[in-house]
Amino acid sequence: MADQIMVKMVLDAWHAKIKEADDIFNKLTDEQLQMEVAPNRNRGIYLLGHLTAVHDGILPLLGFGDRLYPQLDEIYINNPDKAGTRGNSAKELRAWWKNINSTLANHFSQLSPGAWFEKHNAVAEEDFIKQPHRNKLNVIITRITHLASHNGQLIFLVK
Amino acid sequence: MADQIMVKMVLDAWHAKIKEADDIFNKLTDEQLQMEVAPNRNRGIYLLGHLTAVHDGILPLLGFGDRLYPQLDEIYINNPDKAGTRGNSAKELRAWWKNINSTLANHFSQLSPGAWFEKHNAVAEEDFIKQPHRNKLNVIITRITHLASHNGQLIFLVK
Repeated sequence: MADQIMVKMVLDAWHAKIKEADDIFNKLTDEQLQMEVAPNRNRGIYLLGHLTAVHDGILPLLGFGDRLYPQLDEIYINNPDKAGTRGNSAKELRAWWKNINSTLANHFSQLSPGAWFEKHNAVAEEDFIKQPHRNKLNVIITRITHLASHNGQLIFLVK
Repeated sequence: MADQIMVKMVLDAWHAKIKEADDIFNKLTDEQLQMEVAPNRNRGIYLLGHLTAVHDGILPLLGFGDRLYPQLDEIYINNPDKAGTRGNSAKELRAWWKNINSTLANHFSQLSPGAWFEKHNAVAEEDFIKQPHRNKLNVIITRITHLASHNGQLIFLVK
């Protein structure tokens, strides 16, 4: 019962932040996405690619299978914005962002409350015995704050 | 045991975001705090007052006692930045920010894992029976994402 309540708390927060991001992206034109969120900071389109790449990385980490868009890491995680690496179109990134989040939502809904407290795939068995908080649900908590932080920046593009 | 793990997960996230904010504020001079985080957006000092006011509001909500700085709401929550309301000095706000967070940390450390899953003071008994996720720990989750969002903005003041 407690497990179930905790999972609901975290997934509610996840879905609320995804909705917040979707609302922002839906308000922005492809042209607005090309703007920097603040002077000399990341462009909206870079953050869209960055968030898509980070969320895609949740798939193997939680044992949901292979990544859908591993090619995004080089451009949107390993390199900063405007590094000269060839980016993707807004149209592509918008579709991938939508797809990775609905894929994750589908996996999330199928995981039992207890399974959320099992270890994720970046922690060793022996470490998990001593650090049981390094579980699957904790991955979602860290990704929620990551998304919240970038939402706080992306909102600056909405005029 | 499960309660204890969940509480650790959330409080670890809280303390990580508080540290992130502290690191940003410590890097900024009082003059830099007077700058807008992005053109025509909130100044750093307004966000410092805003975060202090919101965190102060956690005290009565979780039954920890009366607020320390209720006067902040009018300036930093009910009114937008540059509304002509008289603000506080950076020195005052920095001290209050530090004090409210250490006061909260002290209360948090004294709450038993089970008590975190009791209802907070803005939900009625009869609603809580049907919505047990509206507990004290959930308040912290929402405040963590709030803080993360503003940290993502304040970092723009760091040059």
